[in-house]
Amino acid sequence: MKKRLGAAAFIFAAALGLSPALSGRAEADTKGFDLMPMPAKVVPAEGKHRVMEGFYVAGATGTAARAFKAASRFMFRLSGRTGLFFKQDFLLTQAAGEPASLVYKYEKAGKLEPFEDEAYNLSIRPDKIELTARTDIGVLRGLETLLQLMAADDQGYYFPCLEVQDGPRFTWRGLMIDAGRHFMPVDMVKRTLDGMAAVKLNVLHWHLTEDQGFRVECKTYPKLHQFGSDGLYYTQDQIRDIIAYAAERGIRVMPEFDIPGHSTSWFAAYPEYASGSGPYTVERKFGVFAPTFNSAEEKTYKFFDGFLKEMAGLFPDPYLHIGGDEVEGGEWKANPAIQQFMKKNGIPDNHSLQAHFNKRILKILTKYGKKMVGWDEVFQPGLPANIVIQSWRGQESLVESARKGYQGLLSNGYYIDLCQPAWEHYLNDPIPETSPLTDDQKKFILGGEATMWAELVTPETVDSRIWPRTAAIAERYWSPQSVKDVEDMYRRMNITSLQLEELGLKHLSYQAMLLRRLARSEAVAPLKVLADVVEPLKRYERHEQATYTSLSPFTRFVDACPPESMTAREFGASVDRLLQTRDQALARDLNAMLVSWRDNHKVLLPIIQGSPVLEEVRPLSEALTLAAETGIKAVDLVLSGQKSDQAWVDEMLKGLGEAKKPKAHAELAILPAVERLVKASAGR
Amino acid sequence: MKKRLGAAAFIFAAALGLSPALSGRAEADTKGFDLMPMPAKVVPAEGKHRVMEGFYVAGATGTAARAFKAASRFMFRLSGRTGLFFKQDFLLTQAAGEPASLVYKYEKAGKLEPFEDEAYNLSIRPDKIELTARTDIGVLRGLETLLQLMAADDQGYYFPCLEVQDGPRFTWRGLMIDAGRHFMPVDMVKRTLDGMAAVKLNVLHWHLTEDQGFRVECKTYPKLHQFGSDGLYYTQDQIRDIIAYAAERGIRVMPEFDIPGHSTSWFAAYPEYASGSGPYTVERKFGVFAPTFNSAEEKTYKFFDGFLKEMAGLFPDPYLHIGGDEVEGGEWKANPAIQQFMKKNGIPDNHSLQAHFNKRILKILTKYGKKMVGWDEVFQPGLPANIVIQSWRGQESLVESARKGYQGLLSNGYYIDLCQPAWEHYLNDPIPETSPLTDDQKKFILGGEATMWAELVTPETVDSRIWPRTAAIAERYWSPQSVKDVEDMYRRMNITSLQLEELGLKHLSYQAMLLRRLARSEAVAPLKVLADVVEPLKRYERHEQATYTSLSPFTRFVDACPPESMTAREFGASVDRLLQTRDQALARDLNAMLVSWRDNHKVLLPIIQGSPVLEEVRPLSEALTLAAETGIKAVDLVLSGQKSDQAWVDEMLKGLGEAKKPKAHAELAILPAVERLVKASAGR
Repeated sequence: MKKRLGAAAFIFAAALGLSPALSGRAEADTKGFDLMPMPAKVVPAEGKHRVMEGFYVAGATGTAARAFKAASRFMFRLSGRTGLFFKQDFLLTQAAGEPASLVYKYEKAGKLEPFEDEAYNLSIRPDKIELTARTDIGVLRGLETLLQLMAADDQGYYFPCLEVQDGPRFTWRGLMIDAGRHFMPVDMVKRTLDGMAAVKLNVLHWHLTEDQGFRVECKTYPKLHQFGSDGLYYTQDQIRDIIAYAAERGIRVMPEFDIPGHSTSWFAAYPEYASGSGPYTVERKFGVFAPTFNSAEEKTYKFFDGFLKEMAGLFPDPYLHIGGDEVEGGEWKANPAIQQFMKKNGIPDNHSLQAHFNKRILKILTKYGKKMVGWDEVFQPGLPANIVIQSWRGQESLVESARKGYQGLLSNGYYIDLCQPAWEHYLNDPIPETSPLTDDQKKFILGGEATMWAELVTPETVDSRIWPRTAAIAERYWSPQSVKDVEDMYRRMNITSLQLEELGLKHLSYQAMLLRRLARSEAVAPLKVLADVVEPLKRYERHEQATYTSLSPFTRFVDACPPESMTAREFGASVDRLLQTRDQALARDLNAMLVSWRDNHKVLLPIIQGSPVLEEVRPLSEALTLAAETGIKAVDLVLSGQKSDQAWVDEMLKGLGEAKKPKAHAELAILPAVERLVKASAGR
Repeated sequence: MKKRLGAAAFIFAAALGLSPALSGRAEADTKGFDLMPMPAKVVPAEGKHRVMEGFYVAGATGTAARAFKAASRFMFRLSGRTGLFFKQDFLLTQAAGEPASLVYKYEKAGKLEPFEDEAYNLSIRPDKIELTARTDIGVLRGLETLLQLMAADDQGYYFPCLEVQDGPRFTWRGLMIDAGRHFMPVDMVKRTLDGMAAVKLNVLHWHLTEDQGFRVECKTYPKLHQFGSDGLYYTQDQIRDIIAYAAERGIRVMPEFDIPGHSTSWFAAYPEYASGSGPYTVERKFGVFAPTFNSAEEKTYKFFDGFLKEMAGLFPDPYLHIGGDEVEGGEWKANPAIQQFMKKNGIPDNHSLQAHFNKRILKILTKYGKKMVGWDEVFQPGLPANIVIQSWRGQESLVESARKGYQGLLSNGYYIDLCQPAWEHYLNDPIPETSPLTDDQKKFILGGEATMWAELVTPETVDSRIWPRTAAIAERYWSPQSVKDVEDMYRRMNITSLQLEELGLKHLSYQAMLLRRLARSEAVAPLKVLADVVEPLKRYERHEQATYTSLSPFTRFVDACPPESMTAREFGASVDRLLQTRDQALARDLNAMLVSWRDNHKVLLPIIQGSPVLEEVRPLSEALTLAAETGIKAVDLVLSGQKSDQAWVDEMLKGLGEAKKPKAHAELAILPAVERLVKASAGR
């Protein structure tokens, strides 16, 4: 979706026009709890439930494997966090004679489909913890909340006594993984599912085919994976394994086969279904390409009948995503037979031809028991209203389709590949408070999906682009709309981030690994100082710096920089506080920070000199020195109370403007705050 | 093997009685090259082969998938290290029109069996790199050498011009993974295989069954994996996938099914084949347990006929390991029918009964085309000489079996789970220079295997116990016997360690992850200062501190400490240098190091106080302060030239003695060097 570089789709942040510090309002009380997503209702009580070696868990009713396995994982994680040697044999014993510390109960096994009941009640008392839900999926959600509640004091670990009543705001809370542009191995998908479960996401949208790769073993048309994947595809056994792994965590797996465009890799195997004459090879570059299925030929639909029949059997989810975005159209226009077909059937343009294609595909999907999902472009006149529209273009198209009675998902504003700050995604709402929809129309909005497009990530770096920001998005989908205090979100997201690491996610550990490789040494401290205040270029700007392909190295300095610099965020907040308070102690802290940045270059230089791949970092590091020197002077001037000289201000702003230009495909994240300092010194 | 706690099997290091600094001798010139294992012969030449974006690789002859895929991985890793955007489409194009930078040639596809040709010649010239080998496996080995040779100067990356003629000293260079005691998931096995290939190991010995778990899907007797694994087992598809992955890296996969002891988990499924009356459940504790196959009953052999027939079909390797170690014997003695059987057949003792069992199993294995491998205990009179003995007990048993014409492997001295320093393993030789064997007898020693027993590791920590020390062991198996300079080994091992990380191995990144979880914070610097001078208790001492089970947490501070502290090693070397030279500058450096250790406790304390699991670290940190204070005084005294007061020395040694006692299941690794300082101050 939205792979057309330079498309101006992401307008939300700009339109909002808010600084993150101002946009949050404490309408829900989230301060006292380190939970993410925040439950719908938390009522604190007196007392603590102590966690000791005798802690054990039992299922009072409902002994299906899913809840029991989740309880076993809960015990492993609790043991891992506390270091306690639990006496319970939690792999085997489900309920024992002695009174359990934690009892879970549910009425029935939940189904993996929209609108299933995921609510739960959690009651923590000093002597007993009770977790009750209508479905075992509710139990899973409650166990995650409980684990997040674990706290410590000088007597050891405990759960604080309280009552939670919780359930989701939206029924469709998804994360899309793009395994087409860069293949994502099984273990990446599994650890992602663990992370999703921890923050109560419930749909893995698996983007399985692209111009750059066809990633599914296909028995009906085996050339698809043989010729379309460079050997990088999921076997059907692996897919079943992943679906089972997701199901055990209460997560649906919806596959996407992106047609009729974005399909070059299919034609590397079967050029006869393309609209052009080929020859076709798996695409290496990124963008929107001409190869498109021939929607005028009957054999195309015969092919899809066989293909979708097999995939409908492989993937148990009720929904199947057909993509449908960014049909380039050139091959259709250039093919005389297609033009003739359109004329004969009164199809006026490519958009209508795609509608024709979609109707045929929908018929096949319906035959094999699947509901159809597609990106914005599939929303065309004449399609029945039982399809789901996933909006990448914006709120407007989602509103329009809801008004016409189509179910919809919001992905616009949740493009986590674009390296934007968490608060922008967090304040983006599938149904904003200003929504023009009626209450009945709002019911058509099922939820949203974060999308991890994979042009610029590999299995090594992808976790850092997903986490922890996706935890904030997960809260948007799960928690009451009133939970939107940005500062408290960041506080809780950083706690959640540490907990996500215990699941094997690499978003924290990957950086040091990349820096060691770059420096060819374990001594990477100066490199980390720089990386901590640098962010990758945002949106599609990075593509302007180099022609990336699926074989490019994603091991450079920019790849070691997480999308959002928490150091820069804290620095900016301190600067704003200084400008309000003129506090001397704060000024000293800021000065110390700026001095350490200023002086970093000389210790970094020998590392750069030993490693040619780091040469591109030199101007970035020099820019940090310049910005820090500027900041040091500006802090002094601000505190002095004198207005600074305009010529100096202009010179500094010019210097910072130069520093702002992209370097090493990245940018210094502290520059806006330094600019604010300089401007403030002039009384602006 | 050698799971009997307290068994005094590892006598090598003590018997050697050498300090690591003294034991190495530079008999082979390894200094100029950052290679591990060192090739048999390297001849430097003038010039550099530059690596730029136009670098590309082609197979001149021999286009089998294995070499080509290895070349593709080579290009990925080269691109990852250099950050270069190679122009070659290295996933598809094997040989193109333009002159290739690197050409590889071989005559035939190598077979995955002992004594296959793994030799290669590598010639690097400014204009061309040629890699020639008799088999494609030789090409794989040569590509790893080439990648290690990559260097950099101020003009960029290059390969230094030289000629390499290389081949292994031993044909069987193994690593054993114990997936029985703690299950090791597929991705752990795969990244381990990548690490093995990088250091030219060629046998994965996969210990698949134990008292604590039966880890293979068995179609003939499905209750084995259903009841014996807690759901933690490899499917046959996963096994085939791993075998194929290994084969692509020129690595054999030899399965081990440990019988007739170490087999409790089998009896959780099929108690009818045990010698006792049960009931049996999967064992959680560690040690040597009573449950043993009934070797007197015919039905036992019928069972094994079915089982081994299936496994012989699943695993293509010519060898199958039957374990055979540590048969506890109690169940045999207590079973009247077995006693009667022994009397009737003239079997005098348990040892002979095991020999009877082995003969029957050997017959089955022979029928299904497999050669038998077993631990020391299977070496019993009357067995044919076509079995392989793997020695965990010591050199003596290996010598004895070689004299009698049995092939053998050495594992004694390569127990990497015991957290001993790399140099001890490195100087342990399958055929020591003092070997009493004749040249003909020596041919029976096929090589050796490092063994990663899994009582105290999980998938999260296991890499740190395997790497980088196993790289030093791999050199022992591959390189000429004369390569044994310990200092240079450490220098090269630390370089190799960084390169291993690019394969996804977690031995460097896991520590920060564990420390963050322990501290519940990203601010772990003081905890890392402590962890860097602490080592886990050695050999079997850790089991004396707690009753570990397969469900225990391995997330404590001790688990975050690698087996060998490089900081302590460097500190010790500096101390020894100071004692020789009385150098003032060195004394200042040592003082600074000691002061930073002394002062660490007060910054660590708040972290301990916030996290109950870290409370056990307090005495360890206090001991570091004490040791550092002692060291600071001792350095002063040593430099002063005055002999220190005997009473002070005694008091200090007493204090250090207290500090030496196990704390948090770990020990301070700098204590021996501080003791040397104190003793030296008294002129001892």
